Amino acid sequence: MPVYTVSHVQNIRICVVMVGLPARGKSFISQKIVRYLSWLSIKARSFNVGNYRRRQQSHPSADFFDSHNEDGLKIRAEAARDAVVDMMKFFNEEDGVVAILDATNTTKARREWILELCRENSIEPMFLESWCDDEKIVMNNIRDVKVSSPDYVDTDPDTAAMDFQKRIEKYREIYEPLEVDTNKDLTFVKLINVNEQVIINKIETYLESRIVYYVMNLHIKPRSIYLSRHGESMYNLEGKIGGDADLSERGWQYARKLPNMIKNVLRINGEEEEDDDDGDEDVQLTVWTSTLKRTQQTASFLRYPKLQWKALDELDAGACDGLTYEEIEKKFPQDFKERDENKYEYRYRGGESYRDVVIRLEPIIMELERQENILIITHQAVLRCIYAYFMNVPQEESPWMSIPLHTLIKLDPRAFKTMVERIKADIPAVSTYKEKGTSQLGEIEDANNKSKNLITGAPSR
Amino acid sequence: MPVYTVSHVQNIRICVVMVGLPARGKSFISQKIVRYLSWLSIKARSFNVGNYRRRQQSHPSADFFDSHNEDGLKIRAEAARDAVVDMMKFFNEEDGVVAILDATNTTKARREWILELCRENSIEPMFLESWCDDEKIVMNNIRDVKVSSPDYVDTDPDTAAMDFQKRIEKYREIYEPLEVDTNKDLTFVKLINVNEQVIINKIETYLESRIVYYVMNLHIKPRSIYLSRHGESMYNLEGKIGGDADLSERGWQYARKLPNMIKNVLRINGEEEEDDDDGDEDVQLTVWTSTLKRTQQTASFLRYPKLQWKALDELDAGACDGLTYEEIEKKFPQDFKERDENKYEYRYRGGESYRDVVIRLEPIIMELERQENILIITHQAVLRCIYAYFMNVPQEESPWMSIPLHTLIKLDPRAFKTMVERIKADIPAVSTYKEKGTSQLGEIEDANNKSKNLITGAPSR
Repeated sequence: MPVYTVSHVQNIRICVVMVGLPARGKSFISQKIVRYLSWLSIKARSFNVGNYRRRQQSHPSADFFDSHNEDGLKIRAEAARDAVVDMMKFFNEEDGVVAILDATNTTKARREWILELCRENSIEPMFLESWCDDEKIVMNNIRDVKVSSPDYVDTDPDTAAMDFQKRIEKYREIYEPLEVDTNKDLTFVKLINVNEQVIINKIETYLESRIVYYVMNLHIKPRSIYLSRHGESMYNLEGKIGGDADLSERGWQYARKLPNMIKNVLRINGEEEEDDDDGDEDVQLTVWTSTLKRTQQTASFLRYPKLQWKALDELDAGACDGLTYEEIEKKFPQDFKERDENKYEYRYRGGESYRDVVIRLEPIIMELERQENILIITHQAVLRCIYAYFMNVPQEESPWMSIPLHTLIKLDPRAFKTMVERIKADIPAVSTYKEKGTSQLGEIEDANNKSKNLITGAPSR
Repeated sequence: MPVYTVSHVQNIRICVVMVGLPARGKSFISQKIVRYLSWLSIKARSFNVGNYRRRQQSHPSADFFDSHNEDGLKIRAEAARDAVVDMMKFFNEEDGVVAILDATNTTKARREWILELCRENSIEPMFLESWCDDEKIVMNNIRDVKVSSPDYVDTDPDTAAMDFQKRIEKYREIYEPLEVDTNKDLTFVKLINVNEQVIINKIETYLESRIVYYVMNLHIKPRSIYLSRHGESMYNLEGKIGGDADLSERGWQYARKLPNMIKNVLRINGEEEEDDDDGDEDVQLTVWTSTLKRTQQTASFLRYPKLQWKALDELDAGACDGLTYEEIEKKFPQDFKERDENKYEYRYRGGESYRDVVIRLEPIIMELERQENILIITHQAVLRCIYAYFMNVPQEESPWMSIPLHTLIKLDPRAFKTMVERIKADIPAVSTYKEKGTSQLGEIEDANNKSKNLITGAPSR
C-alpha cells in the first residue's frame, strides 16, 4: 500500500477533537473524514457523544443542556467518558489510526481533559473547530438535519427547531472558542463560516495535513455527480479486457443518446429553466473522461467543457491486457484464482490492483469535493472505486459491484448519505460482469428493464 | 494534460502578491512556487521588484529605504511600476497563468493599487504574507542570503548584515500587516513563523488551493535527498525496457555496496556522529522504492524504514513493454520517430508519457517537501522527472538527461538553488542511455570514471 502507509511508518495515532456549538456541521465533517480515510484504507472511526448520551436521555428538552442542570451535567459527562473509553479501545485493541471525538467540547476544561488523556496514551490531539456566525447557514442546518434527529422523534419540526435554538443558547453561555494566541501550542484547525476563513496551527504530520486539506475542500452547496461507463466497446463485444478500442455500434447509440439523458436529469434538478436550444450554455456542468478513446467517443456529442484525466483510465491489467477472462484463466490459472480470492488487493502482473486505482483516484475525489456538477465518463473498475467512496461501500465488496453499461448514475450527496438514481438508456449491451469463480460473463443486458430504477442512498456511516 | 488543465478550463489567471518585511523568505517562496508550477506545465513567473530597482540604484544603503527619502521613493515606485508592466505583458502577451509580484507590498495603499490593476485586467489577486517575529529565523535568513545579495557586492558580511537590519527597520515604520478582520473580503494566506500558523481566507479556485497546500508543506530545515536508480537488471543486460526483472549479478553488487555509500554520505553531512555498529539507528533516513522487484532488491541491504510507492514505478511503455529499442523501431517505426521528436509529450500506446509521470509524481514531490532525509530508489524516467523538479530542468530537456546506473545522487536543497553531488559506485553496468535518432544504446559505463564528481547546483531561476 503506497502513499498512505506514511502514517504507518511514522506510527502516528491521531485524535481529531471537534469543537463548536451545535449545528455547526461537526458531525457532517466527522463522517466525511471517516469516509475519506476508510476509503484510503486508514482505519478511522467517529465517536459521537450525543449517541452515547441518548442511551440515558433520548428526548431531552433544551433545559437538559443548561449548565446549571445537575442531572444533565452528570449524564453528559458520563456519555463523554463512555465515548472516550470506546475510543481508547479502538486505538489500543483495534489498531485504530484516526479517531474523531464528535462533540461540542466547548469548554477549556473539557479540552484540557481530552488533551491529558491523549498525552497519557501517546495519541496526537488535533482540534478541529467549526465556528459560524452566519445565522442562515445555522438555520439551514437545523432544518435539514436537526429536526429529524432521534432527539425529536414525533416532534413537530417548528417546535423542534425552536427547542434546538434554545439548546444552542445554553451552549453559547459557556462556549470558549479556540484562541489563536493563547492556544498557539496546540495543533488545531479553525474553520470559519464553512471555509470562508481557515486558521491552521502547528500541523506537523503528513496525515494531519491530508485531513486539513480535505476539510478545506469541502463545501455544502447542492450539486449532483453523474457517473457513466463508456458506451459498449469493440473489446466488450469480444469479451476482452483493457486495450483502447473504439465504441461498438450500440456504444455510439448510447453516446448519441447521452446529451438528452443529461438534459433531462438537469431539468429535473431545476438547473435548466427553459427547454430552448441554448439552454445548455446556462447549465454549469463539466465532463471528465479518461484518456482512452472509448470514453472520449462516449462524450463526443456533449456540449459542455471537457477535461481528460489519465487518473480516470481503466485499471491496468498488465500482462492480461487484451485477453478474455477465459484466456487469463488458461494462461495464468494461479493468478486467476488469487484475484477471485482477494480482488481488492490482487495486482495484475505489471499492472494494478483496485487499491492502486484508489490511490491514484485520490486527487480526483479531492477535486470532486471542490467542484459542483460533474459528469464522469470512465471505466468499470474506476467507477466502482468512485462509487464506493460516495456510497461508503466496504473495499472487499466494491470490486464485485454491478455497474452495467449504458446506464447513467446520478449521485446527490446530502449531509449524512448520498442519494442514488440509476437511469437506463434502453440500449442493449453485453454484460461485462464476471462472477466469482467463473470466467464466464453474464447474459446480455436486458434493455427492457425498467428504464428508471430508484435506489435510496445507503447511509454513509 | 490531465489534472492541471482544471485551471485552463476555468480560464483563471492569478497574481500572487507577496507581502512582508525584508528577510521573511518571500523570494524563497516565490521561486519555489514558480518551480513547482512550471514543473506541472503551468506557466508561472516571478517579478522581483528589487531586481527592477537595482537597475537605477544597485548599492543602496539603508537610508535609501527611508520613507522620507524622496529620491528613494521615486526610484522604488518606478521599479514597482516596471515590474507590473512586465507582469501584465506576461499575462496578456505570453498567456501567463500565475505571476508572483515579489516585493514587500507592506502598505495598504500599495496593495490597493495592485488590487485595482488586477480587477481592471480580470486577474485574481491572492495575497501571500510571510510574517515572522522569530529573530533567529530572520537573522539566519540575513546571514545565508541577504549579505550575498547584489546590493552588498564588496561589502563585509557583518557590515552588510547591520545595514540590512536597519533597512528592515525602515520598512517596519510603515508596515501594515494583513488583518484577519478588515481584509476578510480579500483572498489571502498569512504564514506565521514559517508555517507554525497559517491563516487562509477566501481561497476559491482549485489552483489557489494547490498553491496554498504546497506553501503550507514547505520547510527550511537542512536535509538531503538521495536518488538512485535500481542496480543493473537482467532486462538492462538484454537492452529491454519495462518489465519486472531481477537484478543482474552486478546489480546485486551495487545493492550490497549501497549501505556503505549511504553511511559515508551521511557521515560527511555530520548526521552520523560515531562509526559504530548501531550508528544507523540514530540517522533519520527513510528509503522509498517503487513496487517493482529491481528497486526493492536494490534496497534489500539497507537498514532504514522503507516505503513502497506505486507512483515511483517506471514509465509504463504499454505496447512496447519488454521490447528493445531496435524491436520498437522495427515494430512501430512511426511511434519511434514521434517519440524522438517530442519525448516529453509522447505517450506509448496503452502506456504513459513523461508528462503523465510528472502528474502522478506530484504527491511524491509534495511529500518530499514535507520530509527531511529521504533516499529514493527508482527508475530512469521517474528519476529524470524528480531531478528536473529540484534542478529546474526544462521539460523538453529532462527526458534526455543522462542518469547512469550504479550512481548515487545527493541533492542539497538551499534557498535559491539545489547543490548536486554524484557518487559513483565503481561497479560497471551497461548504459541504458539512448541518443536521439538511434535505437542503439551507449557503450558500457566506465567504472574507472572519477568516483566522485562534484557539480555545482544549477540556479533554480
